[in-house]
Amino acid sequence: VAILVAGGAGFVGTSLVNGLLARGNSIIVIDNFARGADSNLEDGKRSGRLQVVEGDAADLASLRAVVRQHVEPGKITEVWHLAANSDIPAGIADARIDLQDTFMTTFSLLELMQEIDARRMFFASSSAIYGDLGRRILTEDVGPLFPISNYGAMKLASEALITAAAEKFLERAVLFRFPNVVGVPATHGVLLDFIRRLKVDRTRLKVLGDGTQQKSYLHVSDLIEAMLLVEASSSVKVEAINIGPTDQGITVRQIAEETVSVVAPGASIEFGQGTKGWVGHVPRFEYSTAKIQNLGWKPALDSLGAIRLAVRQIAEQENAI
Amino acid sequence: VAILVAGGAGFVGTSLVNGLLARGNSIIVIDNFARGADSNLEDGKRSGRLQVVEGDAADLASLRAVVRQHVEPGKITEVWHLAANSDIPAGIADARIDLQDTFMTTFSLLELMQEIDARRMFFASSSAIYGDLGRRILTEDVGPLFPISNYGAMKLASEALITAAAEKFLERAVLFRFPNVVGVPATHGVLLDFIRRLKVDRTRLKVLGDGTQQKSYLHVSDLIEAMLLVEASSSVKVEAINIGPTDQGITVRQIAEETVSVVAPGASIEFGQGTKGWVGHVPRFEYSTAKIQNLGWKPALDSLGAIRLAVRQIAEQENAI
Repeated sequence: VAILVAGGAGFVGTSLVNGLLARGNSIIVIDNFARGADSNLEDGKRSGRLQVVEGDAADLASLRAVVRQHVEPGKITEVWHLAANSDIPAGIADARIDLQDTFMTTFSLLELMQEIDARRMFFASSSAIYGDLGRRILTEDVGPLFPISNYGAMKLASEALITAAAEKFLERAVLFRFPNVVGVPATHGVLLDFIRRLKVDRTRLKVLGDGTQQKSYLHVSDLIEAMLLVEASSSVKVEAINIGPTDQGITVRQIAEETVSVVAPGASIEFGQGTKGWVGHVPRFEYSTAKIQNLGWKPALDSLGAIRLAVRQIAEQENAI
Repeated sequence: VAILVAGGAGFVGTSLVNGLLARGNSIIVIDNFARGADSNLEDGKRSGRLQVVEGDAADLASLRAVVRQHVEPGKITEVWHLAANSDIPAGIADARIDLQDTFMTTFSLLELMQEIDARRMFFASSSAIYGDLGRRILTEDVGPLFPISNYGAMKLASEALITAAAEKFLERAVLFRFPNVVGVPATHGVLLDFIRRLKVDRTRLKVLGDGTQQKSYLHVSDLIEAMLLVEASSSVKVEAINIGPTDQGITVRQIAEETVSVVAPGASIEFGQGTKGWVGHVPRFEYSTAKIQNLGWKPALDSLGAIRLAVRQIAEQENAI
């Protein structure tokens, strides 16, 4: 048996594929290399159990071609779906991006799964599905779900498709609700943005908003451990599960200061106004991880620790130190 | 100013258009006439304030053409979106039906609205978004939302698109969560099904399931009154609101008996087994209408009353009595 990982050459996908390979699984990755890259998976390929195919997971014909190519080592029984547009502002500017890359990937993967009788779906959903519920604690069962970005909308829409598919043919469906995740290979996000701008001008860093926006961050290594733990230790047919650090998060100011201290010590930090950096960006929320903690999971790094490690990793990736 | 009604020639659309015309509004209907029919709106057209255009609301080019055609009596500022596939089993057999008719209509209408600066969206959502939460009371804020049919999934997906659009440009977004609605012109549903089958064989009626499935029903006249009341009396920017009868519903057995008594008195009723008639069909739920009742709304007919009136209306429509 083999596992299909959609978006497996991207930021989270790379670490997930390595985690699955370490468990002994055979993997086939489909990725459009929009942000992902074949080179991210060089190490994994040496295992002899990894195939990487360029293709569009939103396109059923493309998915069928991947399955046809994948003659060994056996039937695909499981899909980990991480393909998505991860650029929230781009999805706001053009709703078709999230439609195609985030939603239609889910639609087509489910169509494929039904055709090939693959009955296990592990989906990278997002805390963005919760929208802005103010100060309410975001447990997996909170409502109403009114996402405020196209990205969040298409993730919630994907969840809905998956739960309907579970009624029809899936045996297992896990909706992992990701927090903000940091690490390498970084393809997007605030850290990469800060580091790249500091490379251009090492004397100052301009920050959107007043710097008080607070978010929690998880390092990708902790995220993968959480996903594999849930897969192995829970057997609920359909479930959503929040993954995130157990702290209340850190501010943009702290992130900016940490980045500056590593990449351009002494640079000035200039803040804007307001707590919303851009439309569709939830300024602050409290994310409950009680459910996954009850499975025995604890992140090795808190938000600050995750940011500290990731800043160093990304600075290296960008040759900024 | 004018109102665009997508799916306005269909079952609910016909009554809604008549209700909006009675308030003095100017209306333009776009309908693909898949189930709706131009002839349903003959009365309304005599007002001189109704235009009916054949077109596919999932197709942005088609929507733009409707707007171009609609030179009088002014700018479209508001959309009532009732276009959807309403055949749940068909959507289960082919997921592309709900994708196109239920979800892409929402996507394209929102694209159009942004282009023409129409900022008020009234959406026909569904109690199907709640999935099967067992005996839990279905308030508007309940979670998790795990729909079990493609129809419910695409309705929830549409809601998510709309709430994201509200963050971007909408000034008002109301998500009406419909119960089971009965009345004329009937285009689908259990009553039409029973009546048509009784026309073929007046001696007996075969029923899916054991007849104990219980659901609540609202007559379309009460539904329209509720929608117009919410539009007029609430001004929350984004809200979901359950519409439904205040009783706990009636069983399939009662519906079958009522239909037989009107259409084919003395016919035998043969029941099947189990409480699920088909996949994706929630057997029983308790639907909270406290929120809309707090706005001062009460249905004129309870579930049994709605079914009784609708059976007679549909029997007439079908020339079955």
